[in-house]
Amino acid sequence: MFDQDLAKKAGENLKNLREKKPLIHNITNYVVMNYTANALLACGASPVMAHASEEVEEMVSFAGALVLNIGTLTPYWVDSMLKAGRRANELNIPIILDPVGSGATKLRTDSAKQLIDEVSIKVVRGNASEVLSLAHEGSKTKGVDSIHTVDEAADAALVLSRELNTTLAITGKIDLITDGERIYRVSNGHDLMGYCTGTGCTATVIIGAFLAVDPDPVIATTTALAYFGLAGEKAAAKSHAPGSFQIAMLDALYTIDEKQMEQGAKIHSQ
Amino acid sequence: MFDQDLAKKAGENLKNLREKKPLIHNITNYVVMNYTANALLACGASPVMAHASEEVEEMVSFAGALVLNIGTLTPYWVDSMLKAGRRANELNIPIILDPVGSGATKLRTDSAKQLIDEVSIKVVRGNASEVLSLAHEGSKTKGVDSIHTVDEAADAALVLSRELNTTLAITGKIDLITDGERIYRVSNGHDLMGYCTGTGCTATVIIGAFLAVDPDPVIATTTALAYFGLAGEKAAAKSHAPGSFQIAMLDALYTIDEKQMEQGAKIHSQ
Amino acid sequence: MFDQDLAKKAGENLKNLREKKPLIHNITNYVVMNYTANALLACGASPVMAHASEEVEEMVSFAGALVLNIGTLTPYWVDSMLKAGRRANELNIPIILDPVGSGATKLRTDSAKQLIDEVSIKVVRGNASEVLSLAHEGSKTKGVDSIHTVDEAADAALVLSRELNTTLAITGKIDLITDGERIYRVSNGHDLMGYCTGTGCTATVIIGAFLAVDPDPVIATTTALAYFGLAGEKAAAKSHAPGSFQIAMLDALYTIDEKQMEQGAKIHSQ
Repeated sequence: MFDQDLAKKAGENLKNLREKKPLIHNITNYVVMNYTANALLACGASPVMAHASEEVEEMVSFAGALVLNIGTLTPYWVDSMLKAGRRANELNIPIILDPVGSGATKLRTDSAKQLIDEVSIKVVRGNASEVLSLAHEGSKTKGVDSIHTVDEAADAALVLSRELNTTLAITGKIDLITDGERIYRVSNGHDLMGYCTGTGCTATVIIGAFLAVDPDPVIATTTALAYFGLAGEKAAAKSHAPGSFQIAMLDALYTIDEKQMEQGAKIHSQ
Repeated sequence: MFDQDLAKKAGENLKNLREKKPLIHNITNYVVMNYTANALLACGASPVMAHASEEVEEMVSFAGALVLNIGTLTPYWVDSMLKAGRRANELNIPIILDPVGSGATKLRTDSAKQLIDEVSIKVVRGNASEVLSLAHEGSKTKGVDSIHTVDEAADAALVLSRELNTTLAITGKIDLITDGERIYRVSNGHDLMGYCTGTGCTATVIIGAFLAVDPDPVIATTTALAYFGLAGEKAAAKSHAPGSFQIAMLDALYTIDEKQMEQGAKIHSQ
Repeated sequence: MFDQDLAKKAGENLKNLREKKPLIHNITNYVVMNYTANALLACGASPVMAHASEEVEEMVSFAGALVLNIGTLTPYWVDSMLKAGRRANELNIPIILDPVGSGATKLRTDSAKQLIDEVSIKVVRGNASEVLSLAHEGSKTKGVDSIHTVDEAADAALVLSRELNTTLAITGKIDLITDGERIYRVSNGHDLMGYCTGTGCTATVIIGAFLAVDPDPVIATTTALAYFGLAGEKAAAKSHAPGSFQIAMLDALYTIDEKQMEQGAKIHSQ
């Protein structure tokens, strides 16, 4: 059953975001920088991309949230992420990590784990493989290959969320969000989102924007994903191919209002 | 009152640009590289992005103008900008600087000032905060926080333009362009431009293209900003949300002809 | 006369691509990363962009093809290309090189030649200047300035293809593809493609995707270029300016089906 309170909260968060226009500091990958900056502007936030070791601590101090994304990482960029992350922690600025490709190469898995170990991360968003690759050795979490049902994924996410002490968002056809206690599911979205590069990375920055206006990470994440998925649904009503679809997504992020958000959110609490 | 001579000049510059198709060498930020390259192609110029220390001097030697943009700077990139800039100076190739985020972090302010000190820059384009952050210590220029009226901004720009010995373009709802003697204002544009990432950076590359065909920096800049703002107006007639708007902007840069330019320019001389 | 067998093969390759969804590993330039990733997704492949020296060997081991593009090269990136290339050779993963700007600066010409010398490259795609700049000193290949007719270009490409021991694709109004023995020409395409940044780079990644499903480089390349050119034709039927045109291109890459491909291919064998 849809959670009407959270649907209402999604609308409120969107309204607050547009009023407060928080600065979102991104240290992210080259592929999505343009699109995610546009998505942040479209939803009402103010993006800045800055990765130089010399300035990330100063830049993050102005931010409402920090987005770390390892999609085209090198060790230099990871060092800047650590530096910005530590300063964000000192200033109580929420951090979201997108562990792009974690599990695929050692550099990515190690870098994602190092960020989680050395910085306090509020939310990690990835697909199932990426998120479950973050388990420590000896973890009680099942590996991704041993997960065959939605319930098994939920169990694994609950365990891992407690282990890593962060909210986890596993996105896919149905998004699963948990802080180790509460579990929410979001069924907004559309298949064409999978044909646009950086869809996951864009979900991450939208969560970042919601974290800047909602102090509860699991609620911020859940409502952000409902909003992002709803934008996908609105875009699919206008376009049937991925080029025009991704442009229509930006349009929808801009045009969805509080009321449409409240009516369109498909959030299930367990 | 609109300056009809400059409106005519805007159309002529656009026509010349499309005939000469100058190469514009960009050392710019990751976020806007794709969009600004597309904008340059759409307006009739030929973009190249190249930042390697080993090749920037050779590359700039083919260019009609050099665009320097510190939006995602690191010291390595600034070194390449200095190298390319010095070579451009030797060859009398005009340079435009976009001091993105100058005033926000020490790295950005220092890098922008170093570029202005060590290289002869024809035009600097930024928003009011960025441009006014470039004043030397002990400058007679008022800081951005002390500016409350359009006339105060104009006074500050006049003083700073003389101090820095460059044409300044402060863009916003109304663009202000001055070389320390003449002042022009451009009122073309549309609010949706503020919801697209890299709008300012794109204005900068368009000015770069006009500099390649018009030897008077203040006239090149003024006419370029009228053209860019007119493209925003044409786009707003087609689209009401930022995704489709920024695509329509590229279309408009391509389709605006000399006559439309002449009729659409909203340039005021003082 | 159109080659009907190759037209049929183009449709089959497209169908196979969508069924196999090969991972295409790109070490490419900043300007086109987003667009080429979207093009790969639209055509049915799965893109990954990864350039860190620490991970390229591991990443390429999962790939169906490796795309190397020197559009915004630095020596660090070329080193990663060499590393990834050597590993791809060991694993018999096909490599395509896009020598962007070779001939324009020494860094680009030298880097492109080093890649060809040290790595076994299946296909090189560029414009005439770029491709012909790859000739060794003392080459029998005529320089680009001495080529005035299509037949002269074909002769030069045949000679150079044998010298470099790779398939060459010289793209332009009519694309020329040769492995030193066979020559094909593709006349699909549209003039607006020249007003979109990264059109050549996108042709290259589409060839990369076709290489992952067709073991004959000259056939993979020829059919890929027919598909890409056909997408340009479909896009031109929807749009008359470069912003909306490049979005319509992505849509067309997604919507063209096997039958349309077979009917639309304009491939000439000699």
